[in-house]
Amino acid sequence: MVGPEIERLIQALARLPGLGPRSARRAALHLLKHRERLLQPLAEALLAAGRAVVPCAVCGNLDSRDPCGICADPRRDASMVCVVEEVADLWALERGSAFRGRYHVLGGAMSALDGIGPDQLAIPSLLRRVEAGGIGEVILATGATVDGQTTAHYLADRLAPSGVRVSSLARGVPVGGELDYLDDGTLSAALRDRRPL
Amino acid sequence: MVGPEIERLIQALARLPGLGPRSARRAALHLLKHRERLLQPLAEALLAAGRAVVPCAVCGNLDSRDPCGICADPRRDASMVCVVEEVADLWALERGSAFRGRYHVLGGAMSALDGIGPDQLAIPSLLRRVEAGGIGEVILATGATVDGQTTAHYLADRLAPSGVRVSSLARGVPVGGELDYLDDGTLSAALRDRRPL
Repeated sequence: MVGPEIERLIQALARLPGLGPRSARRAALHLLKHRERLLQPLAEALLAAGRAVVPCAVCGNLDSRDPCGICADPRRDASMVCVVEEVADLWALERGSAFRGRYHVLGGAMSALDGIGPDQLAIPSLLRRVEAGGIGEVILATGATVDGQTTAHYLADRLAPSGVRVSSLARGVPVGGELDYLDDGTLSAALRDRRPL
Repeated sequence: MVGPEIERLIQALARLPGLGPRSARRAALHLLKHRERLLQPLAEALLAAGRAVVPCAVCGNLDSRDPCGICADPRRDASMVCVVEEVADLWALERGSAFRGRYHVLGGAMSALDGIGPDQLAIPSLLRRVEAGGIGEVILATGATVDGQTTAHYLADRLAPSGVRVSSLARGVPVGGELDYLDDGTLSAALRDRRPL
């Protein structure tokens, strides 16, 4: 029905997370309607990012320089390392600006089901970073999922002999959260970890 | 926080319809994680489509050839022309395969509020197509909105002297629609245009 070039564009757009076939068609038409303003800049941004962006050899963050802006920033506390599953998690923590240490991106979580063990993740490089010294605390910020928690437990075990402090994010009621809408697990955790006022 | 190339890519993705800032970040990371499989093919598909796709000089459809595949297809009935606002509407009708005539894409609807009159749309070229002869019926398939209906009324007036049959899409209960969920206007129209069984 449509030419091969349009079809190929729709197929490529439909592979983006968050775009189904219908919204990919809409996006393709929108791009073709605004070529100078949208299509061309998007193509150039893709090629430029594909050329320039590299994973940081220290922490696994994505940036146009290596080591990344965070690892290279002398104002960030090198003695604290926050371990996350994905670069997206690192970005989420950075948006909050609450953490001034450094990161380590695992590239996923351990999963017996998917056959992902420690060696498929950036766990050996994390252990080497800790062994090299200079790190006082490792904050495990993997997801609150079965795989994320399995990974955190494994890391806590492996890091124990090194003597560094190992912590994890607090579990509890999210800011703005209404008790009525929270799941039982979160409520139990919030009750168990209650704090004196 | 992120390098300029990543920021530029996120900005360009966020301008797509259906992608907000959060999903644009997710999409950018997904593309950077799968460069060979996703990022490169998307950039190439964009450039190829931007080069090859042109509007059809006859009907305004987008295709990699001009006249487009529909206008060039001798099996399609050239005596029927279906008038739509956008290429997306043409694609929607083609997915149903119910129409075997040709199209005319207006490029929008008339709007007093936005200052869009007949000359900003492909209305003069539609009138020339009808004047040139060979067309027996014009089906007005503009949207069931105020602007779409204003455009349809204007076109019906302008086409009246030419003597061609002018029709519009039926209004009524959509297939699979439950009466309880339908708006009053649709129900009134369905009742008024009821048909004998």
